[in-house]
Amino acid sequence: MTRFAVVCGTTHTAAIEGISAAGATPELMAHTPAADSEILVYGQPAFAPVTPVSPTGCPTPAIITRAIRECIGFDPVVVDAGLTGETAAPIVALDGRPGVDIREPAAVPEARGIFERAREVGTALPDEELWIGETIPGGTTTALGVLTALGEPLTVSSSLPENPVELKRRVVREGLAASRLDSGDAADEPLRAIEDVGDPVLSGILGLAVGALESGAEVTLAGGTQLLAVAACIRHRGIDAPLSLATTSFVASGATDLDRAAADLDLDLVVTNPRFERADHVSMKRYCDGEAKEGVGLGGALALYDRAGEPWDRLHERVVAVYERCLDA
Amino acid sequence: MTRFAVVCGTTHTAAIEGISAAGATPELMAHTPAADSEILVYGQPAFAPVTPVSPTGCPTPAIITRAIRECIGFDPVVVDAGLTGETAAPIVALDGRPGVDIREPAAVPEARGIFERAREVGTALPDEELWIGETIPGGTTTALGVLTALGEPLTVSSSLPENPVELKRRVVREGLAASRLDSGDAADEPLRAIEDVGDPVLSGILGLAVGALESGAEVTLAGGTQLLAVAACIRHRGIDAPLSLATTSFVASGATDLDRAAADLDLDLVVTNPRFERADHVSMKRYCDGEAKEGVGLGGALALYDRAGEPWDRLHERVVAVYERCLDA
Repeated sequence: MTRFAVVCGTTHTAAIEGISAAGATPELMAHTPAADSEILVYGQPAFAPVTPVSPTGCPTPAIITRAIRECIGFDPVVVDAGLTGETAAPIVALDGRPGVDIREPAAVPEARGIFERAREVGTALPDEELWIGETIPGGTTTALGVLTALGEPLTVSSSLPENPVELKRRVVREGLAASRLDSGDAADEPLRAIEDVGDPVLSGILGLAVGALESGAEVTLAGGTQLLAVAACIRHRGIDAPLSLATTSFVASGATDLDRAAADLDLDLVVTNPRFERADHVSMKRYCDGEAKEGVGLGGALALYDRAGEPWDRLHERVVAVYERCLDA
Repeated sequence: MTRFAVVCGTTHTAAIEGISAAGATPELMAHTPAADSEILVYGQPAFAPVTPVSPTGCPTPAIITRAIRECIGFDPVVVDAGLTGETAAPIVALDGRPGVDIREPAAVPEARGIFERAREVGTALPDEELWIGETIPGGTTTALGVLTALGEPLTVSSSLPENPVELKRRVVREGLAASRLDSGDAADEPLRAIEDVGDPVLSGILGLAVGALESGAEVTLAGGTQLLAVAACIRHRGIDAPLSLATTSFVASGATDLDRAAADLDLDLVVTNPRFERADHVSMKRYCDGEAKEGVGLGGALALYDRAGEPWDRLHERVVAVYERCLDA
């Protein structure tokens, strides 16, 4: 069987102005992971106050992942690595807390506890295939922090059309300095990298993936550069098991070094293009303009849709239906 | 959309010798609700040590409910009203604790908190149809306690082929005495009845049902006499909205007054017979001998299967497959 896990959480790093577009305002951004989880499970928000949109109105990728689920019917599981506030979505709790701003000395004090708990879950899941995505605003900045601490010379993507990469690099430099780390200092200690300059979701995904690989499951990391950071953590732990990264064409077309990164980390790279240019609707059009790009396992969900052999226009219609339901809710 | 909620929890009342058959031993019985939840969600136990069986080897109804899900594909949500120990199943937590032996003064000290939290969830769920089942060993005894405290002259079913009804009545008498209640004293206060002589799962189901009815959803109570006790609580709260009770033919054939009770409480009664007498396998045969009878929403799942128009032999084959997977796990 195929299991589709989405690890959710928050980090105060997202509150840095200009870092993330995963919410209309900083206050609403804190609700985005819970709202995404509810949309994935229930098809619309339940406790969450609104459907997440970017400041320019681009809707959350949760809508598209949910639409794919409504078309082809996969089984989700939401894993809570450190949510802010409550959710009506059923969750597997990893007993984490929201991540600290990485410019503080410890970004995820309980990184090892989250990892071990997630590893137990990953080991216990009976599914043959585990796909793992994320929802955490600010997550590409923390991913850049971890990649830098590991000494991996990779850049990260953005939910904004213009990637604020200089801002991210400055935040990461400050984060490394606060943790008394130089680039590459945590090369042999991925959990230290996460603890110092990462976020709780990275720790949860790493634990799930390691546990599932140990129990013999096939693991696909479903997402963009945040999942690439997890892949780097897995390799830096010395695990050389087969590993896939499934992402969207929106991430792939914005990243110059994704192919090389996948080759360096020995990843089976799957890039899926949902042909959104054929769909004339805000929920998809903005993705073509480079907004959002990824999240809530979208690249993985698209790969599952493609594998199911369904036509893209069926998905486009369903995305509009889910969008309208969510925005009316 | 249709949502299938299973409210899980435990009560120390189940540890009274001879009360429940929902586990091979009293120690294993405490794991039954978590194991049932994992079987429903994942198709086999994950963290739970074993697949629940009765002392005579009758497997948990979770296997059949799961088999129905694999045939017709409904969306479950596990709601935790007071589990013992950990589960790998994703849950909506109601922040309850395991119920106290009803022979103590307070059986569910936090009954009102569980109810209010569940009501919020029931109100927030966007589904048009909510089906609600239970898994809690000892639950028919606590149900008898609540029915008695409400002054409803109804008997309850049993997971044992020979219902230890005299033992249950004695336990309930002791429970009422410890709470300084006479039969009917809590007729206007269902939550007091649960608090004094009920269990956390009854409180959770009541809250979910009340919240969903308030938001205009159709509610079906999926189970036997425990769900009948919840129906009584709903009516004793003065709620006269349409309400269905969906149970198995195994419960219906063992209860002499189910039709009358449904009429008295103005319930639309749906009884489904899965024709297990045609299936020559232990996982179904023992149900024909009067064991287990209900649980994990089985009566509701059977009604959904029947509504889908699928043939019973397809279900029988799937039950054997799930049984073998669970017992091999």
